[in-house]
Amino acid sequence: MPTNRRFILERRPNGVPAAADFRLSEESVPEPGEGEFVIRNIYASLDPAMRGWLDDAPSYMPPVPLGEAVRASTVGKVVASKSADFPVGTWVSGLGAIEEYSLSREGGFTRAIDVSSVPSPSNYLSVLGAVGLTAYFGVVDVLAPKAGQTMLVSGAAGAVGSLVGQIGKIHGCRTIGIAGGPDKVRRLTEDYGYDVGIDYRGKDRAAIEAEIRTAAPGGVDLVFENVGGDILDATLDCLADRAVIALCGLISEYNSVEKVGARNIWQLIVHRAMIRGFLVSDYLPRFAEGVTALAGWMGEGKLRFDEHIDRGIENALPAFLRLFEGTNEGKMILQLGEP
Amino acid sequence: MPTNRRFILERRPNGVPAAADFRLSEESVPEPGEGEFVIRNIYASLDPAMRGWLDDAPSYMPPVPLGEAVRASTVGKVVASKSADFPVGTWVSGLGAIEEYSLSREGGFTRAIDVSSVPSPSNYLSVLGAVGLTAYFGVVDVLAPKAGQTMLVSGAAGAVGSLVGQIGKIHGCRTIGIAGGPDKVRRLTEDYGYDVGIDYRGKDRAAIEAEIRTAAPGGVDLVFENVGGDILDATLDCLADRAVIALCGLISEYNSVEKVGARNIWQLIVHRAMIRGFLVSDYLPRFAEGVTALAGWMGEGKLRFDEHIDRGIENALPAFLRLFEGTNEGKMILQLGEP
Repeated sequence: MPTNRRFILERRPNGVPAAADFRLSEESVPEPGEGEFVIRNIYASLDPAMRGWLDDAPSYMPPVPLGEAVRASTVGKVVASKSADFPVGTWVSGLGAIEEYSLSREGGFTRAIDVSSVPSPSNYLSVLGAVGLTAYFGVVDVLAPKAGQTMLVSGAAGAVGSLVGQIGKIHGCRTIGIAGGPDKVRRLTEDYGYDVGIDYRGKDRAAIEAEIRTAAPGGVDLVFENVGGDILDATLDCLADRAVIALCGLISEYNSVEKVGARNIWQLIVHRAMIRGFLVSDYLPRFAEGVTALAGWMGEGKLRFDEHIDRGIENALPAFLRLFEGTNEGKMILQLGEP
Repeated sequence: MPTNRRFILERRPNGVPAAADFRLSEESVPEPGEGEFVIRNIYASLDPAMRGWLDDAPSYMPPVPLGEAVRASTVGKVVASKSADFPVGTWVSGLGAIEEYSLSREGGFTRAIDVSSVPSPSNYLSVLGAVGLTAYFGVVDVLAPKAGQTMLVSGAAGAVGSLVGQIGKIHGCRTIGIAGGPDKVRRLTEDYGYDVGIDYRGKDRAAIEAEIRTAAPGGVDLVFENVGGDILDATLDCLADRAVIALCGLISEYNSVEKVGARNIWQLIVHRAMIRGFLVSDYLPRFAEGVTALAGWMGEGKLRFDEHIDRGIENALPAFLRLFEGTNEGKMILQLGEP
């Protein structure tokens, strides 16, 4: 009888999550009731937004309860079922948890996926999952780019940012990416088609601002913000009139107790600009449109995407912390089992 | 021969403007050349935004040059003219300076005004001037309110804020005003029709947030922001989904060297909300629409507005500083001469 190892939240992290905030429990594999099925999880998505779910703070989702497995998007295979819709052997994706087996039921967020059409089932956690859809709707709906506009992307070598830049190019934008370290910055132009790559590492706000200004002398029309902090403030000083900032994430702040936010919002008045927050989940009714577009661009060879896969539930924390250390190269995924 | 006293910027202020930053010069009254005319200024508008014009920082207007009179909107009368369009005796309003006489010319920003239709020519610096038009376009165009929505206004007893609340009521909104001190808060509900008045004085961010939440248990749909700082951060914690924040000003920051901005922008993601900066000058092509609407509401007795008039160019600085001390009651105007 296999055991079900689960990555349990024991204590709410204060700042950077620590080993003592979590526990690996060993439980028995659940049995499905009527209409239920058991998924053997093969991949779990590790995303910056998960940091917020660990706090007991008002947000767009309830906090992960103490004593429960940490919430994550997953891809897996049905191994036991009392549901005609999800027979044994079905590949599925949904909002589950970091655990080797999950109990799910019909009518929830779990859906069947077609793994024959993609290079790897894990792609449903990257380019065809929330990451790809976040990039798609953030660009197409929030920024609504016009050909010839200048688009600035922070976290540009990350899972979302690398796709944002490429979708911006597909729409005819001039793209400027900001990332940390020479390797990532090289990948911005070589792998992800950015016109300019800026390395923020070791630079203060004024130096970052100077580089953005050099790259966009007429100002930045569109901003896809993943980072916040000094990078956002430097960006606010380089806006073109009527700039739009799509606020997707603030990874520089997730482990900070004191938030800095956007100190430079006066520039929103100067340039009649706007910051608009968005969540991919609001676009659920349009997910099919997004997946179709992304799969189409993949098929045409227009989208390069990378996945960084660490293995084993025992590595859940160090794999998650890579997102904040910037040591992942591509969408961060934890592999929990063999396909 | 009269002299022309002028309020000259001598040095750029560091923080709160001080007496030594300015000088009162006595010069001869200018002579008009061909197409020019001389205005005897009777009223000058004192606005928070003028603080920014004193800094040597990139903004939507060039800084006031050192050695020049401080820029201000004015109302006055033509006393000498070589322009057929602006004969002696014409009442005019325009973007001039704090000085007793100004030289102006045809084709500039100075326009003739009809003082017979208003209680006082100074109204062209308040309800029918930039202040009234800022309130009008900020509400009608940026916030675009729907009946039944909850509108929060900071600086709600101020020149702009008092009109914003009343225009919000005209559009069927429930209005909550924030102001400083019991007298102003009393005027919010008694004079300006706010449904709820909140006093921020002596309260920290958490206490302000608690009062907003009590006043708007379902969250705030529309925000007209004049203040920034703790008030903006407390507001961001009380947004309804898809809230819109019209960013008009940040008076709490204008004399600060270190800006705090909006620390709490994570809430923009949580609520898919937006902050949008705007400038009344962008609505120049629609000013007639705004003046017509405001004059119409005045005629119907739906708009109460107050003017706080201090007298004498020698009082320019203390009168200006009232805006930051909060000791003005209504639109701050400096009277430079008799009508």
